[in-house]
Amino acid sequence: MTPGPCPVPPEVRLALSRPVIHHRTEEYHAIHAAVVDGLRKILKTEKNDVFLFASTGTGAMESAVANTLSAGDKAIVVRGGKFSERWGELCRAYGAIFIPLDIEWGKSVDPGLIEKQLTENPDVRVVFTTLCETSTGAKTDIEAIGTIVAGTGAILVVDAVTGLGVSEVETDAWGLDVVICGGQKAFMVPTGLAFVCVSEKARERVDLAKSPRYYFDYRRAKKAADKNETAWSAPASLIIALKESIDRILGEGVENVIARHALLSGALRTGVEALGLKVLADSPADGVTAILPPEGIPADDLRKTMLDKYGVHVAGGQERLRGKIIRIGTMGYCDTLDVIAALSALEMSLVNLGYTVDLGLGVRAAEEVLMATKKHKRHKK
Amino acid sequence: MTPGPCPVPPEVRLALSRPVIHHRTEEYHAIHAAVVDGLRKILKTEKNDVFLFASTGTGAMESAVANTLSAGDKAIVVRGGKFSERWGELCRAYGAIFIPLDIEWGKSVDPGLIEKQLTENPDVRVVFTTLCETSTGAKTDIEAIGTIVAGTGAILVVDAVTGLGVSEVETDAWGLDVVICGGQKAFMVPTGLAFVCVSEKARERVDLAKSPRYYFDYRRAKKAADKNETAWSAPASLIIALKESIDRILGEGVENVIARHALLSGALRTGVEALGLKVLADSPADGVTAILPPEGIPADDLRKTMLDKYGVHVAGGQERLRGKIIRIGTMGYCDTLDVIAALSALEMSLVNLGYTVDLGLGVRAAEEVLMATKKHKRHKK
Repeated sequence: MTPGPCPVPPEVRLALSRPVIHHRTEEYHAIHAAVVDGLRKILKTEKNDVFLFASTGTGAMESAVANTLSAGDKAIVVRGGKFSERWGELCRAYGAIFIPLDIEWGKSVDPGLIEKQLTENPDVRVVFTTLCETSTGAKTDIEAIGTIVAGTGAILVVDAVTGLGVSEVETDAWGLDVVICGGQKAFMVPTGLAFVCVSEKARERVDLAKSPRYYFDYRRAKKAADKNETAWSAPASLIIALKESIDRILGEGVENVIARHALLSGALRTGVEALGLKVLADSPADGVTAILPPEGIPADDLRKTMLDKYGVHVAGGQERLRGKIIRIGTMGYCDTLDVIAALSALEMSLVNLGYTVDLGLGVRAAEEVLMATKKHKRHKK
Repeated sequence: MTPGPCPVPPEVRLALSRPVIHHRTEEYHAIHAAVVDGLRKILKTEKNDVFLFASTGTGAMESAVANTLSAGDKAIVVRGGKFSERWGELCRAYGAIFIPLDIEWGKSVDPGLIEKQLTENPDVRVVFTTLCETSTGAKTDIEAIGTIVAGTGAILVVDAVTGLGVSEVETDAWGLDVVICGGQKAFMVPTGLAFVCVSEKARERVDLAKSPRYYFDYRRAKKAADKNETAWSAPASLIIALKESIDRILGEGVENVIARHALLSGALRTGVEALGLKVLADSPADGVTAILPPEGIPADDLRKTMLDKYGVHVAGGQERLRGKIIRIGTMGYCDTLDVIAALSALEMSLVNLGYTVDLGLGVRAAEEVLMATKKHKRHKK
């Protein structure tokens, strides 16, 4: 239950064990087309391009910088955690000038601040944001930011690696220009596959950008995508696995998948708070929950006890949050009793470490939330 | 039997269907260390760095350019096919100036020409070469080039994607500075994993190079590799699969693997020539054999007949060789009777298309080669 890589369902793992197919064949073209079609449905876009890359999410993030900026161009970077800070590092690597909008880790940006900066800096080319900051579990109001940026000459880039397939993303309606995603979270495939969704407005910037790029060049990707291919050898096995996952998501229904994530993480947060612990994020995301342990209980001891004694693998804090939080992922192949298991391991581990709390309190609070909804049907099989 | 992606052995495919593991764990660190150790044995290097990337070979090629050159730097690019031309495209993308050493497709470069250029251009920083040109099946004398470049201030970069695990590569003894490889050929894993081997001489250039890079940055890769990790999320499932393949290669013995590839492709070439067909390359590589069909038989008809009628999937020509050749891969999970099957499909397809030849002639010639060796023991299981 880390915030990625996330569990892979059995039928997806079995798909990976099929004999490999060649990527310049009709058989592959049909799979590629189906995957892109499914991703468009999940991204809620009619006609934006979807490019698949053999890479992690970081490679796809770099692609967004290299394809939309030239050295000396101006950008806005919203930073509130390890992953959103990466946008700044990438801008620096490419010689772009960026206005940092720094927020306390765990908080979410006020979209009005972006509006203010865009008004004061009409030469800003790109706004870089993060749907869910994996290091803090904080969610950004991408809809509001999308509306603001759409009215300007700038484009909006969204890191939705921890977010797409978890919470609502309306690419067309919100005016999102580049959406970055990866396979190893809510998309339930092993690490190694990333995809980006690119609007027409972004394509104009791609043609203007002068940064060196080749492997991640959207112009080469576009040419290949129009033939239902990738520009380079396709990671066909991972793409076939992704097709299985997408079939699963579309079979459950995108709205139901989002409702399930909201229900599960809501139940987790309620259980955590019933135990007297605090959720870090003011505006929590539904894919990962960052939790501050009680006074006197070191976060890493808590994490290790959950793993060693109960076999529940959660993540710790990163960088300035190292040793201060635990993070529980509830993405993708996750259902009711996974949350109960995590809460049970959490409360038993707390008691093991000397915290005084009634056993069962967190589980009970979560059960109440889970039973209050009529909509949820069993997800795992 | 295309020149990649190549067949994946059953135990490697089954490894891919195991539950995913997290990449920041001791369990992963041990696997990473074993893979790097195995790759060093195959690369014949004592202490050069080995970095793993979630990418195809092209991404790893870009990494070599971005990490060793700055805009305006001078390089030598040996070009004799679609893939070696990519070095030139990459240099252009990064604003490097390159001296092209163009050779006829199917020929191999005279190492003396590189020596001449290096003498005339002492400011050349990097020499880009290709061990086996996948589009022509031609092999380059990397040993001779390595000896030449080692005596200069330049570094030698070798694309060994189609070559490592097929023919001899002596990274240390030959003085190779950056060796590029990918998993989907002789390493028998699905597409999506690339690795590079970097010498100390190359590391000095990495520190000097000013090209923008992030995902493929060797400095970040080095920091992570020293902890048995990748800089970004590791494609752990593919790396676990690679460990299975490496165990298989080391179990057979690197020298035996190379001897098997030489035997199989040698038998194939003998069979092809017995049928009156011509092998394109003057100095043929042992991983892929490019074959010119007889006068009057269109290469693509031959390829399609082999696939549709006999189920043998070989590749066609690319770019200026489109429609002119077929290419048969004999890499990785390939043994005696695969070559016989390919030759049988080839001779039957030729007769189907109206070519006059005695059936069985190619197979017989190959069998004679295969039976003449005493060393070969059965590889597949």
